[in-house]
Amino acid sequence: MAKQKKDNRPKAALPKGFRDIGAEELRSLTSMVATIREVCEVYGFEPLSTSAIEYTEALGKFLPDQDRPNAGVFSFQDDDEQWMSLRYDLTAPLARYVAENYDALPKPYRRYQTGSVFRNEKPGPGRFREFTQFDADTVGTDNPAADAEFCMLAPDALERLGIPRGSYRMNVNSRKVLDGVLEAAGIDPAGEADARRRLTVLRAIDKLDRLGSEGVALLLGPGRKDESGDFTEGAGLAPKAIETILGFVTIAPGERGATLERIAPLIERSARGMEGLAELARMDDLLSAGGYGADRVVVNPGVVRGLEYYTGPVFEAELTFEARAEDGTLARFGSVGGGGRYDGLVARFRGNEVPATGFSIGVSRLYAALKALGRTGEAASRGPVVVLVLDQARLPDCQRMAQSLRAESIRAEVYLGTSGLKAQMRYADKRGAPVVVIEGDEERQRGEVTLKDLIEGSRLAGGIRDHQEWKEARPAQVSVPAADLVAEVRRLLSRHG
Amino acid sequence: MAKQKKDNRPKAALPKGFRDIGAEELRSLTSMVATIREVCEVYGFEPLSTSAIEYTEALGKFLPDQDRPNAGVFSFQDDDEQWMSLRYDLTAPLARYVAENYDALPKPYRRYQTGSVFRNEKPGPGRFREFTQFDADTVGTDNPAADAEFCMLAPDALERLGIPRGSYRMNVNSRKVLDGVLEAAGIDPAGEADARRRLTVLRAIDKLDRLGSEGVALLLGPGRKDESGDFTEGAGLAPKAIETILGFVTIAPGERGATLERIAPLIERSARGMEGLAELARMDDLLSAGGYGADRVVVNPGVVRGLEYYTGPVFEAELTFEARAEDGTLARFGSVGGGGRYDGLVARFRGNEVPATGFSIGVSRLYAALKALGRTGEAASRGPVVVLVLDQARLPDCQRMAQSLRAESIRAEVYLGTSGLKAQMRYADKRGAPVVVIEGDEERQRGEVTLKDLIEGSRLAGGIRDHQEWKEARPAQVSVPAADLVAEVRRLLSRHG
Repeated sequence: MAKQKKDNRPKAALPKGFRDIGAEELRSLTSMVATIREVCEVYGFEPLSTSAIEYTEALGKFLPDQDRPNAGVFSFQDDDEQWMSLRYDLTAPLARYVAENYDALPKPYRRYQTGSVFRNEKPGPGRFREFTQFDADTVGTDNPAADAEFCMLAPDALERLGIPRGSYRMNVNSRKVLDGVLEAAGIDPAGEADARRRLTVLRAIDKLDRLGSEGVALLLGPGRKDESGDFTEGAGLAPKAIETILGFVTIAPGERGATLERIAPLIERSARGMEGLAELARMDDLLSAGGYGADRVVVNPGVVRGLEYYTGPVFEAELTFEARAEDGTLARFGSVGGGGRYDGLVARFRGNEVPATGFSIGVSRLYAALKALGRTGEAASRGPVVVLVLDQARLPDCQRMAQSLRAESIRAEVYLGTSGLKAQMRYADKRGAPVVVIEGDEERQRGEVTLKDLIEGSRLAGGIRDHQEWKEARPAQVSVPAADLVAEVRRLLSRHG
Repeated sequence: MAKQKKDNRPKAALPKGFRDIGAEELRSLTSMVATIREVCEVYGFEPLSTSAIEYTEALGKFLPDQDRPNAGVFSFQDDDEQWMSLRYDLTAPLARYVAENYDALPKPYRRYQTGSVFRNEKPGPGRFREFTQFDADTVGTDNPAADAEFCMLAPDALERLGIPRGSYRMNVNSRKVLDGVLEAAGIDPAGEADARRRLTVLRAIDKLDRLGSEGVALLLGPGRKDESGDFTEGAGLAPKAIETILGFVTIAPGERGATLERIAPLIERSARGMEGLAELARMDDLLSAGGYGADRVVVNPGVVRGLEYYTGPVFEAELTFEARAEDGTLARFGSVGGGGRYDGLVARFRGNEVPATGFSIGVSRLYAALKALGRTGEAASRGPVVVLVLDQARLPDCQRMAQSLRAESIRAEVYLGTSGLKAQMRYADKRGAPVVVIEGDEERQRGEVTLKDLIEGSRLAGGIRDHQEWKEARPAQVSVPAADLVAEVRRLLSRHG
């Protein structure tokens, strides 16, 4: 009977791919997001929040990440049979919002937004089905100054978060320039006919980091057999075309002007390519005028992530320091955000094209980076001062002590359970309390309270087994006049920074 | 053809019951939530975030608001056919979290959480299908000190948000005391047999505000016909029983001790009722010791909202000032949050009961209250300083000016569109810019920039039609040395507070 009852209980677990975020990480995330928000505010962006649920048809199929073609959305039908979905990013809802409120919005419209997005796809290590994005977008202008702005805002935000200059770089590339290169290689950069081959080429280039020039050359040409013997079909390009494309994507980023000069001859016969180059040159001007040199922002033709989706300049924030990956190997931290210029999203609703550009930060990934750098502000997550309760009848006094600490903005709580001293000490330890406050009978008669410094104490003390032993050992503890409680607690806290 | 194309476009609209939140409200909400969070932190609560999606069976059917029996959840099946749902509150996920992590958590476990919750129900004015809650809960202690704490924390939070003392009150009641009254009225407060009658009684009492004692007496007795002629069946209680119940719920809240003394004789033969009374008395002790008098926290037997759900003390934060309702009538603002002690939620998973108590704030409702009081911090949402661009070739200079303002934490942006001066001025107006910065050719030659005070200017100026007229009229504008840009902008901003 008891067993059966147990079997009927629901399981206390989350569906795969979802997770809870505990106090330490959540505090860091909250403070991180607040910092990014401040940077967006000072740049003049306005906050926006859209609902998590949209009509499925309004979201469309604009998943930027074509690496995961199976990526799906969580969908359900409304009472009127219309399909609704959870948003999978913050860009599609922005397009709907802009289309819906077009006439009322200032043009350009610049907004930032943060919130959960949902992907109904196979979860994996570090890949969740709900995660937080932070986006900033500028809608309604084709001015490359808007693209350049994100290449200044992102470095400002990273540095404000404590990532030192030299530990990150913004990689800038251009879809138009790549199209020019494809054109030079004899691939139609826009037509339907070459669509499949274009995709194969983009995917091949994206593997440059992993396979090197030789591997990519095979994927651009006849195809490639990997170590396991699996064969990947190639794009079937002629050697000359392969050389043109590799010549572009292997240009090592250096001074931006020099990089642009190296690109120019590759695309000089493509109007679209030259247009893209002019945009990059304009961004270079603005970045240079702003003091953002090649130590922070480079033109990097090797970066093609998202190029299928974007229509003009693209940019990626890359952390260049090494960190230990999940498998224990050291590697560059890699991308923590990216963006670029996109068209057509608002046009889906309105017919006419509304140029737009934006940048999206992967909040969890950036948190992992800050953690690897020790910049997540652990001090802020220190536990509260815990006032122990030796006698429930004295709880009002204990509560007053906690109040006097709170009044001075010191995190403090009264132990609210009903267990004895030993359990209360364990509780305080588990809470990460830096200090406990104890007012025993004797202390009270002398007008004193006892403060125990748990941070210091944990270095000294053995286990405290009972009140008697406690009174005899008193490791790292002091009796102070009750009137000096707040000042003395503050003194102890300041010891530990 | 064009028409057909147009018809194929998705509609730029949200499903009914969902909404976007624009900059002004969102900034206020963000700052409001940050303030409540700070109060929870200083009380020693820890932040938690759980996922928006849970297994449906883990959420169970613990919708606290039984007024809306049709309230449903948004659900969908996972690949493995298991049903998942969007959370409808933050309490059910907390119960799942505590059950899942029981051994690792400190006991009591005290956490706060804020986030969207979803109700798949008919939307109405001010009733949305996605809205934000802010919850704080203490799990794992039956100590009334934990209940009392919320009756101190809530007033602290309201006052920190700018709601003055005297404009709100915490109403405290007790499910156990009410059960004692029901017992005295001959209704079994726990058994299944009287379950339906109990519900009728609770719903009748809940209408006290609207129907008065006479109307409630009818609903407790033979039933009531309303003005439209509709008949509501009554609980069928005898006159003596009705008198007992009305005697309880019409006790006007005054000094807490006096109220408790008036309640005592009504329930003196119910052990459960007296237990509830002792808990309220203990809370009274602690509240009094903390300096929270009857000007802030009262015992109010007339408050029964949620009593079906709660198992011990219940509390409600009520705003007592009047505000204009949507229909234009003046009325008390009413409840902005509530909570109480609940059992069984964690027991669903674990078998053994884990006592818990908590408080939930309706974030949108509280925002509406702050707005009615003019406490939403409009100043913080002032638009950025806009640097106009008279000549795209000079954009780098404009950008440098914006940067110099940002470096001093002044919100500033360069106009990023490509339109002329007139459109740029309209843009600045629409953005709520307090100041625009203009550097024309002549100014630059003199090493000066022009600042236009739009707040002052909007009081003076007529419409500026072209650059020529602009130069002649120059309402509320000054030329200042370019080197003094930041100082002069700061001076203009400080004029408007």
